[in-house]
Amino acid sequence: MIIIGIDPGTRVTGYGIIYFDGVLFHAIDYGCIRPPPTLKLSDRYLIIYDSLTELLAKYQVQIAAMETQFASPINPQIGIKVGMARGSAIIAARKQDIPIYEYSPTQVKLASVGYGHASKYQVQAMIQNQFKLGKLPPSDAADALALTLCYIYSYKNKQAFVEL
Amino acid sequence: MIIIGIDPGTRVTGYGIIYFDGVLFHAIDYGCIRPPPTLKLSDRYLIIYDSLTELLAKYQVQIAAMETQFASPINPQIGIKVGMARGSAIIAARKQDIPIYEYSPTQVKLASVGYGHASKYQVQAMIQNQFKLGKLPPSDAADALALTLCYIYSYKNKQAFVEL
Repeated sequence: MIIIGIDPGTRVTGYGIIYFDGVLFHAIDYGCIRPPPTLKLSDRYLIIYDSLTELLAKYQVQIAAMETQFASPINPQIGIKVGMARGSAIIAARKQDIPIYEYSPTQVKLASVGYGHASKYQVQAMIQNQFKLGKLPPSDAADALALTLCYIYSYKNKQAFVEL
Repeated sequence: MIIIGIDPGTRVTGYGIIYFDGVLFHAIDYGCIRPPPTLKLSDRYLIIYDSLTELLAKYQVQIAAMETQFASPINPQIGIKVGMARGSAIIAARKQDIPIYEYSPTQVKLASVGYGHASKYQVQAMIQNQFKLGKLPPSDAADALALTLCYIYSYKNKQAFVEL
């Protein structure tokens, strides 16, 4: 099966697309969508939507994994922006009838690094290692690849899937 | 021109579609999109997106008006949900190349009721009156129609448009 991890954000949306045969897995493509910050906000979300739509179709993605988002009470306005980027990603996946499974930030770090409070760099290094990548992946792409590991982990351990 | 006001929400998305010839205006259609709350969240956003896409195409909408969203620091998690509904509406409009203009909650109340701190019922009653509607519109549809009045007001007063 082909699985995408998506880490949506207005500035940077990380993605990681992998192949998983039930036992083994490898990365097919990963990277970051960075809409030009000079564009108006609505066009930046359109770029996120269009880029993901293209990737999902190109690789015939069957399953999507996203992280549960928690808004900060200190700057709750960021929650709206994250929500908008997230909405764009959700529509892209659901338009192609792809189910979206949701994982908490702790689950993501557990699946990639083995404990819940890993640094960004630790996640990048472990993802590079797990997927045998030639170089350190960008942080947002590493987070997206870590999300696909969450799916693999729940699949292998026959855990319940939480669908968004 | 044909203008839509959109008031996006996960439970209820209000919309109001009007015709405006530069002087006179009238309502063409208005109502609420209410995705069944029993559906999973991602499918509810898909319903918002699909319903708006259909309305925009059906009425050949040229301009969209939305309210600036402010997240609550008391329950910032709601901001993420509002953001996701908002993202779905943004993608629907931008996929049809419709510009989105943004108005603050105070501007909306000023344009519809004439002062900034009107109650929900006052907005509904004034919107019914302004558009000569046969009955009181639902609150979310009234808010959406009020947004179209913001556009008309800025158009007539040659105010700068703030594009989302």
